Amino acid sequence: MLTGDRPTGRLHLGHYVGSLQNRVKLQDQYECFFIIADLHTLTTRPEKSAIQEIAGNAREMVLDYLAAGVDPDRSTVYLQSAVPEIYELNLLFEMLVTVPRLQRLPSLKDMARSANLQEMPFGLLGYPILQSGDILLPRAHLVPVGKDNEAHVELTREIARRFNNLYGEVFPIPRVLVGDVPTLVGTDGKAKMSKSLNNTIYLSDKAQEVEKKVRGMFTDPNRVRADVPGTVEGNPVFIYHRIFNPNTAEVAELEDRYRSGTVGDVEVKERLAEALNRFLDPLRERRAAYEAEKGLVDRIILEGTMRVREEARKTLTEVRKATGLGGVWNSIRRKAEKAARQE
Amino acid sequence: MLTGDRPTGRLHLGHYVGSLQNRVKLQDQYECFFIIADLHTLTTRPEKSAIQEIAGNAREMVLDYLAAGVDPDRSTVYLQSAVPEIYELNLLFEMLVTVPRLQRLPSLKDMARSANLQEMPFGLLGYPILQSGDILLPRAHLVPVGKDNEAHVELTREIARRFNNLYGEVFPIPRVLVGDVPTLVGTDGKAKMSKSLNNTIYLSDKAQEVEKKVRGMFTDPNRVRADVPGTVEGNPVFIYHRIFNPNTAEVAELEDRYRSGTVGDVEVKERLAEALNRFLDPLRERRAAYEAEKGLVDRIILEGTMRVREEARKTLTEVRKATGLGGVWNSIRRKAEKAARQE
Repeated sequence: MLTGDRPTGRLHLGHYVGSLQNRVKLQDQYECFFIIADLHTLTTRPEKSAIQEIAGNAREMVLDYLAAGVDPDRSTVYLQSAVPEIYELNLLFEMLVTVPRLQRLPSLKDMARSANLQEMPFGLLGYPILQSGDILLPRAHLVPVGKDNEAHVELTREIARRFNNLYGEVFPIPRVLVGDVPTLVGTDGKAKMSKSLNNTIYLSDKAQEVEKKVRGMFTDPNRVRADVPGTVEGNPVFIYHRIFNPNTAEVAELEDRYRSGTVGDVEVKERLAEALNRFLDPLRERRAAYEAEKGLVDRIILEGTMRVREEARKTLTEVRKATGLGGVWNSIRRKAEKAARQE
Repeated sequence: MLTGDRPTGRLHLGHYVGSLQNRVKLQDQYECFFIIADLHTLTTRPEKSAIQEIAGNAREMVLDYLAAGVDPDRSTVYLQSAVPEIYELNLLFEMLVTVPRLQRLPSLKDMARSANLQEMPFGLLGYPILQSGDILLPRAHLVPVGKDNEAHVELTREIARRFNNLYGEVFPIPRVLVGDVPTLVGTDGKAKMSKSLNNTIYLSDKAQEVEKKVRGMFTDPNRVRADVPGTVEGNPVFIYHRIFNPNTAEVAELEDRYRSGTVGDVEVKERLAEALNRFLDPLRERRAAYEAEKGLVDRIILEGTMRVREEARKTLTEVRKATGLGGVWNSIRRKAEKAARQE
């Protein structure tokens, strides 16, 4: 199983429901690879200042993984740019996909728009090809992703099939697993919790920060007073309650009272903040424990990267053999060495 | 200085006038790198059968270089796919170019059309980026190319400038040098001599083959008999005379007589075949001498590739330092190793 994130900063509740909780569950069944996709950050932000943030962001992100329950003893966490084979596999895959096929993916246009790019960078159009390289390099069988990346895994499957058809069976056709709540609404009621929209609750937020953010949350805009009946459908406060508050009786009671105008926003939000903090407390404890071990996160990444390099070398040996590209070089080297011996 | 060709087969007179003669001249002034651009063949023909032809084609092509006068002791001939750093540099450069910039290059659409591709492969749209990687990897200063690749070197210059602006001065801005006779008309009078049009005279063609091909050449279609005045302008037989026949008096005399209807096509063609064979004889001798040394071509490629790998490693070390990507990995490794020592 392979999954991962671009190291753009700390992870939030949206990441948790979209993919992280799945990953934690799946580690009991699968061998798990987590990629720190730093090369993917270059597709929208190639500038040096962005690259200089990668190491720090990667450390925060891995701490978030560990806090969420990823077990470092059973998982392989690695840095994409430190596995040289990805570059080669990516170039080979670029020959197997057409430009119109990539242009039909709405996700890439959205990314260009969010990054305020007037014209699509070539590297951004190739984003899902690089992603396919990530998935197929350690020959992953299962890819748990958020809704927005589902189409990219479909492309990965196409590339794997096309490669196998052209050159022989090298890659498994990976399956996609989309998280339970594909996208989480932001605290401002906007469609998606996202760092750039400043509508997030981070996994590493302290209790008081969570309380403050919840107090400022968007609710039913038509409800001007606590005794006015309100709508719970599409109301982010209730969406969060249903996801993060395991006390279903409490949630049902709050919903009934909200609908009939017998509970104030303040109380509903206080209960949500309490539920979120109960949910986040074990994450905070784990985070603190891992943080206390100096250099632990770096060791996890170093060891994971070494491990993946080994897998990557094996895959590329098979890829070069299957395509015949390895044979070109071997043939030249053998003939040259034979001639040198006979001299 | 860097230049090269895709290993698609033997080279012909069009290659000679377009680029090869320039390269031979330039080796007295510059350190010369010749790339066997096998990865570029995958942009239009990724299939296994095409890859299996690479080694043989590369050997024929290098023999053509040597026959044309490329001095193996002063030149570095190398196999693109055997220099791993090209893959990494290519990916980084892909972030620095936009899709519309590439789509404005007519050369790529022409290539897709000639290869009968319905839709543009992503790798083909990236062709000039990969080429930029080839040029900038050994930090070439001069790029002698045919007319159709001039715009690609312009893109290389843009990429080098953009890279230097973003990350600091790493690359020289290479100059382009377009061959004297940018494109050579085919024996059939079509705009361009090209293997796929079957209108070529190969550098390795035997004397009789040259005679036969010249006899079948397209001339002035309005000239039905030898005593009808003919046109020498745009007439491929006279174009070749002016390029390959060093006897300018003979060429001027034939032109006068052709215009006045006092020479037959047969005689003009016979004289051209003689001139071409005089031109090709020294190439044939050199080819035979190099062919006699078994494994020589393979040794030239092996040694050249090793040499370029060394240059490539140096460049990539600087690239990783400039972009900061090397720093990401170094920082993680150092912290991890420090933690391990303290345990």
